[in-house]
Amino acid sequence: MKEVKNRLDRETLESWKSKLDMDASTFITAYSNLHSNEQYQVLRSFDTDRQRKVFSLIPPEMTAQVFKWFSRDEQVRLYREMDEAYRIRMLDRLASDDVRRFIEPMESTEQNDILERMDASKRKHMQELLAYPSYSAGSIMRKEFIMAAPEADVAEAIQKLREHTDTYEAVYFIYIVDRDHAFVGLVSLRNLLMAEHSTKLMDICDTNIRTVPADMDQEEVAHIIQDYDVISVPVVGTNNELLGIITVDDIIDVIEFEATEDVGELTASRGTTDMNLSSFKAARKRAPWIMLLMFLGLITANVIGAFEETLESVVLLSFFIPLVMDAAGNTGTQSLAVMVRTISTGEYQKHGLWRTLMREFGTGVLVGLSSAIVIVVLIMLIYQEAWLAFVVGASLLLTLSFSTVIGSILPIIINKLKIDPAVASGPFITTLNDIIGLTIYFTIATTLLQI
Amino acid sequence: MKEVKNRLDRETLESWKSKLDMDASTFITAYSNLHSNEQYQVLRSFDTDRQRKVFSLIPPEMTAQVFKWFSRDEQVRLYREMDEAYRIRMLDRLASDDVRRFIEPMESTEQNDILERMDASKRKHMQELLAYPSYSAGSIMRKEFIMAAPEADVAEAIQKLREHTDTYEAVYFIYIVDRDHAFVGLVSLRNLLMAEHSTKLMDICDTNIRTVPADMDQEEVAHIIQDYDVISVPVVGTNNELLGIITVDDIIDVIEFEATEDVGELTASRGTTDMNLSSFKAARKRAPWIMLLMFLGLITANVIGAFEETLESVVLLSFFIPLVMDAAGNTGTQSLAVMVRTISTGEYQKHGLWRTLMREFGTGVLVGLSSAIVIVVLIMLIYQEAWLAFVVGASLLLTLSFSTVIGSILPIIINKLKIDPAVASGPFITTLNDIIGLTIYFTIATTLLQI
Repeated sequence: MKEVKNRLDRETLESWKSKLDMDASTFITAYSNLHSNEQYQVLRSFDTDRQRKVFSLIPPEMTAQVFKWFSRDEQVRLYREMDEAYRIRMLDRLASDDVRRFIEPMESTEQNDILERMDASKRKHMQELLAYPSYSAGSIMRKEFIMAAPEADVAEAIQKLREHTDTYEAVYFIYIVDRDHAFVGLVSLRNLLMAEHSTKLMDICDTNIRTVPADMDQEEVAHIIQDYDVISVPVVGTNNELLGIITVDDIIDVIEFEATEDVGELTASRGTTDMNLSSFKAARKRAPWIMLLMFLGLITANVIGAFEETLESVVLLSFFIPLVMDAAGNTGTQSLAVMVRTISTGEYQKHGLWRTLMREFGTGVLVGLSSAIVIVVLIMLIYQEAWLAFVVGASLLLTLSFSTVIGSILPIIINKLKIDPAVASGPFITTLNDIIGLTIYFTIATTLLQI
Repeated sequence: MKEVKNRLDRETLESWKSKLDMDASTFITAYSNLHSNEQYQVLRSFDTDRQRKVFSLIPPEMTAQVFKWFSRDEQVRLYREMDEAYRIRMLDRLASDDVRRFIEPMESTEQNDILERMDASKRKHMQELLAYPSYSAGSIMRKEFIMAAPEADVAEAIQKLREHTDTYEAVYFIYIVDRDHAFVGLVSLRNLLMAEHSTKLMDICDTNIRTVPADMDQEEVAHIIQDYDVISVPVVGTNNELLGIITVDDIIDVIEFEATEDVGELTASRGTTDMNLSSFKAARKRAPWIMLLMFLGLITANVIGAFEETLESVVLLSFFIPLVMDAAGNTGTQSLAVMVRTISTGEYQKHGLWRTLMREFGTGVLVGLSSAIVIVVLIMLIYQEAWLAFVVGASLLLTLSFSTVIGSILPIIINKLKIDPAVASGPFITTLNDIIGLTIYFTIATTLLQI
């Protein structure tokens, strides 16, 4: 958790405003020299009037480079400020995966309206991408890459690179496909540089390349890109035909999304980290969890209710309800956190269930034992009640040993049963551990009182 | 959270064992054709005897490609199985950032011992890298990149590419530095391909390149690589001299590390997701948090103790202690999760403190209001106690409104005060919210009883 300092400061952004207001031609030159992410920051800081003015000065091709940096909501607002022709020319120049992200949530009439006006080949690409389910490799791939036949020579490949100079920004490979469009391999620009102009591409082509099927989940694609240490991966269809490529920058977004989902699972706040959501929408997403957890809380109330007699005779017992609950909840959440992250990063798969469980159980016993010793000493010092010290201490030892096991096994069971993993979120495990912890606590107390 | 399926299965790994046992030369050919990550999986599944046999068959240059995939602990074990000469030749061929990761935790005598045997230029590189503090750009950069002078021509650059064929795996740029070694810009291989052999590099060099200083924090470097959509970033010294490069694959590791740290902050389990840690070591890292939280739990005991009279007259009140606590804790944790992730991904910086706080407060009031209504109805149905329903309902509304604010403002305050952000972890905020929630609950109850 560290703030990003890598942003233009307010002063600089103000100076861009006055640049635009004072002299359009100076603005154009200076703005054009900025990196697209800085252009984005400038454009973002402008009001709609100034944004419209920028669109009248800057060609849609350049705006296409900037558009991808905006959040979807901002894109929609920005898009409204552009005139018809500008919009379409911009979308035509936007990478296909970025276009998909923008038009996918639209209603189909609006979507078709846009598609119809687009360049014919781009339209075909977009229709293909939109046909893949969300979060699949096919849905995040891009169609902009350079292809060549294995029989083509280096000179032809260089010619192709020249033709696409302004269409594709960063090109590092030529994708080799045979007559049936089946993927053969990659020619790196480095091999191209070191070869003679007359060399056939098949002779400098690396054919030992990992591809991914179009229906693979994007998280799995992310793992493959990490495991194979590559900057892009070709997406192929059922007959090995080359459909598109997924590049590492898109994968970084997937990894961030995945991490945010992990945090959401831990805290039952999935899908609410988008700061563009209103309070109302965020509440609507979070309230169901809090209420569901409240119902579980009623079970806890019943657990305590079952020991009403014990509580009535020793009100002091209720003082330690929070302590036992928190210790159980916190320990369980730690184990859960360890599981969620080790599963995501692939560490868990290396070690297996048994070793993981034993590790967590051992940790629980050790943490429980040390906590128990400390609390016994403290209660003796503060309350001078040996039996209370024993009840709280013994409860802590037992509860903490169990709660690590529950915290680590529940996400795995839920993963295996293919239930929505949000059910294994921190608050659920905490509540479950609360119930177990309080039952242990009151059972020990009641037993002791009866002796 | 999704399991990685992209791994060789047990059967395949077994077949590699028998390949090695049966016929060494078949093994060498087949193993050499694997991707380094698959070689890693095979090597990892072998016992030490077989690993030693692999080292006798496979040159250290190839093992260097595999070595980086292992965890540090595994690397140490593997390293022990290699003989002296093999070790050093392998380390000489390992990228400098990977060597750093391996030798950095060693004691200085052992470190020096290794450095002394290394190739002279590599040793110099390593000493430079080791001088930078952990997590800085300088510590994660690599020294393996191709440099050229602005006055050099394309033919010379191609010659350099040829010279380094087997040293550097993936090369996408030539780094241009002037006579004082100051960074000038990048020449992409694409521009190299499209230019004439006699073209000077300065004429096809992109000079509008974002660099990072060597002391920049690695998380910030990660944000820059994401913001500028590049696959590598040059690291420069105080006089703009080119020191090294950081590539996108290292940045993915940083992003994963950062996400795991975020989860750790949320659950006070930082640094324990490494499954190679023993129960004892994991307990030693986690127990202090659980104990510290237990001390805070004693405060909660005191809060309840302060209302002992109220509790004695209405034991029923204690039934709802867990419900009020959990609702406060869960809501606060949701807000915290939103903050931690929006700060990490840079979303927070876009919206600012005020808007974020208002959003969270608004969400808290709405969630509180709906929870209050539901609980009032439920308590009326189950316990038929209007005053109890009122106490619990009113407490929920107030507590939930506050706990979102605490969950979102505390991490920011702590970030600003530069205190270890682990102090803002979920359990702490939960305990703080417990105390506030229980105080509100018992205050309302006591006031009502006195009327």
